[in-house]
Amino acid sequence: MHSSLSEIKAEVLGRIRPRPEERERLKEISGRILLGAERLAAERGIDLKAMLVGSAARNTWLAQDHDLDLFLGVPESADLGEALEVARLIAPEHEEKYAEHAYVHAKIDGFDVDLVPCYLVKDASRLKSAVDRTPFHTKYVSERIPGLEDEVLLAKQFMKGVGVYGSELKVGGFSGYLTELLIIYYGSFEKVLEAASGWRPGVLIDLEGRAAEERAAYTGREPLIVVDPVDPGRNVAAALTPDRMLQFAAASRCFLHHPNIDFFFPPSAKPLSDEELLGLLEARGSSLMLLLLPAPSVVEDVLFPQLRKAEESVRALLEKNCFSLLRSDVGCVSGRAFLLFELEVSHLSRASRRVGPPVWEADHLSRFLEAHPKPLSGPYIRDGRAVVELCRSYTRPQDLLAAKIGGLSLGKHLSSAIREGHNILVGPEIASIKDEEFRAFLREYFEARNWIC
Amino acid sequence: MHSSLSEIKAEVLGRIRPRPEERERLKEISGRILLGAERLAAERGIDLKAMLVGSAARNTWLAQDHDLDLFLGVPESADLGEALEVARLIAPEHEEKYAEHAYVHAKIDGFDVDLVPCYLVKDASRLKSAVDRTPFHTKYVSERIPGLEDEVLLAKQFMKGVGVYGSELKVGGFSGYLTELLIIYYGSFEKVLEAASGWRPGVLIDLEGRAAEERAAYTGREPLIVVDPVDPGRNVAAALTPDRMLQFAAASRCFLHHPNIDFFFPPSAKPLSDEELLGLLEARGSSLMLLLLPAPSVVEDVLFPQLRKAEESVRALLEKNCFSLLRSDVGCVSGRAFLLFELEVSHLSRASRRVGPPVWEADHLSRFLEAHPKPLSGPYIRDGRAVVELCRSYTRPQDLLAAKIGGLSLGKHLSSAIREGHNILVGPEIASIKDEEFRAFLREYFEARNWIC
Repeated sequence: MHSSLSEIKAEVLGRIRPRPEERERLKEISGRILLGAERLAAERGIDLKAMLVGSAARNTWLAQDHDLDLFLGVPESADLGEALEVARLIAPEHEEKYAEHAYVHAKIDGFDVDLVPCYLVKDASRLKSAVDRTPFHTKYVSERIPGLEDEVLLAKQFMKGVGVYGSELKVGGFSGYLTELLIIYYGSFEKVLEAASGWRPGVLIDLEGRAAEERAAYTGREPLIVVDPVDPGRNVAAALTPDRMLQFAAASRCFLHHPNIDFFFPPSAKPLSDEELLGLLEARGSSLMLLLLPAPSVVEDVLFPQLRKAEESVRALLEKNCFSLLRSDVGCVSGRAFLLFELEVSHLSRASRRVGPPVWEADHLSRFLEAHPKPLSGPYIRDGRAVVELCRSYTRPQDLLAAKIGGLSLGKHLSSAIREGHNILVGPEIASIKDEEFRAFLREYFEARNWIC
Repeated sequence: MHSSLSEIKAEVLGRIRPRPEERERLKEISGRILLGAERLAAERGIDLKAMLVGSAARNTWLAQDHDLDLFLGVPESADLGEALEVARLIAPEHEEKYAEHAYVHAKIDGFDVDLVPCYLVKDASRLKSAVDRTPFHTKYVSERIPGLEDEVLLAKQFMKGVGVYGSELKVGGFSGYLTELLIIYYGSFEKVLEAASGWRPGVLIDLEGRAAEERAAYTGREPLIVVDPVDPGRNVAAALTPDRMLQFAAASRCFLHHPNIDFFFPPSAKPLSDEELLGLLEARGSSLMLLLLPAPSVVEDVLFPQLRKAEESVRALLEKNCFSLLRSDVGCVSGRAFLLFELEVSHLSRASRRVGPPVWEADHLSRFLEAHPKPLSGPYIRDGRAVVELCRSYTRPQDLLAAKIGGLSLGKHLSSAIREGHNILVGPEIASIKDEEFRAFLREYFEARNWIC
């Protein structure tokens, strides 16, 4: 079934554009909370300005995406604690969370509401806390986005579909604000895709021509620099990884060549059955090793960097010990974090080479020989150096990992999770994990398909 | 059993110094051939001077070493063919061989006699053929060696015992002439060993202070430069490999610390039994792969460089395909040449990664994707590049070698030998080769022990 681009866009918008009743409800509920907050503050003599920010404020939220970001601004000289107190009172049943500062999260009338204290600064470049910038973003976008809301919705849904939406560290993709700026800069969904089709690392987008003011601040290794129009020292795309940027570029090119609604709504990965899993293990002939541990109770933005760091540590351990890797990945499902390693070799010879010093370095040589008094073979001379062949301590990757995991650099929360208990499963043993989300993860792992053409 | 250095030397000399009757016999037989050669030449009106050269002429041959080198010199203006004709007449039952020019080999009264035509040049640096230098070597050594003959014998036997004697390409060690020069330069067997104990690559020995004359000619990568006193443009140690030089250095240091007659007469390697072979394969857990082929009928100096070259080609093939090598070696026994490869992995996963171009190189990318339409996994993006996972054609090293051997760069004679027929044996299959010399080779391969301390 081939559809034209405009047919596809129309169908997508039909599914993601909030209906009038949803808009009304959001307006009504947010208005009520804002009013309530300012009234509570006034009763307490607190100078506070409540603001709706984020996509709800800009008319760029996707249907059914019931997140409300409400900021409670106090003067720079005031105490954020007063705003936090107001937030607590608005939603008696709430959860307190913590980013740079504490904020309140609550379910109100079916919406996920974040109530975030901030300072009302004069200029976004003179902020006291990272969240202080957000009201400026909302102002900048709100002034320019009217008429382009559908374009933003299409871009967001496209990015979701191809797996690059979200600036959280787990994804490393495009934030909502970044998407809005791209639409403002290029003018439409299609123009963004056309431009992105030609991207390679090193793109600079400077909406207000302010890059020169602060050049030095973002000449790092970021693949895409989008100068924040309200704070030119900041790269709006700082969280975007090079591979996510290129994944978007490649998908854009593909979509423009072969438009298809699947880019927006990819079929969700079905859990892999036992038969499929065992069949894939057989067909790939690789050694799949799973390290399972209890997920530490931290947010994903804390967990995922630690999982990635642990993945790198284990990869380095395996490769240093000649266990050649095909691929690896990490995840977290149903309260369990995991690291998955796929190896090209299931076991190595017991014999292994240990290369010593040049034979003319008499002192080094003596120490080397004393350290290996009974080698399997040697000592012999190769390329001027003394060499011995020794018994490898671990001939299977799982034995190596089990022995060395305690000494790896894994990040604070993962280290204690591993001490609490962990499991290493290899090959068909992995089929003992029946969790559907994990099985769906495995299908995506094995397919490993990005849109590239 | 610890003996003093002088006791050891006395015992060694007792075994390697030719007895008076052996000296008499050699003198008598060589004298007879020389006389016969000159008489035959005179009868034919050929201007020819017959000379005994080599260790027999210098009194530095090891007992039981029944090689005679007789050179038949003609004037520079004459034809070497005339001298060759005389050589043929001396030994009616002979074999013609070929180095730079033809020469005659014959068994005469139990001696292996080489009859080598050469030109009588005025100066060793103005030679017409490589062998023309030899009479100058004999003259140089004969004038300086009297009184040092036993030192030469000890040095030669020591080098034999530690495996570094012989300038043939199979060994890459010390020639007889080089050994004699070392004795002349340092003054005694022990002084040679003391000096060698401190060697590292880059030693220059210049007996006549003539290095400056021709410096450029031997500033290559040779680890030991011994300026030829009769032809300063030549490095007498050109055939010595760095590892053989260092093997001698290390053995010298060991021997001086722990003198032992085993350095001179190491116990010969016993053939490995089936049980020992299978036990070692088990203990090492490695994958031993043997490539057997009919030995081409060429001299070792032609065969061994080709075997080493083939070894390098196969190593490169294996490593390029991720079959990590532990060690390899080559040899030739009972009419069969062989290459032995010991691997750390017996098989690899069927899945393997193929890394393509950066995803922004649209043309390269299209060709890459078209070439791999149905990958096992992918295409996906990693580090900016398109990656697919494909089925490896060969998951076992023996399958890879069998498939690719025809296309490897192996040297002329080996290539045709391989076309004639070859076998690849793996692991316990190697136990089907019962040849005792091969089994002794295997024991030495597994021990792989040089004198190092």
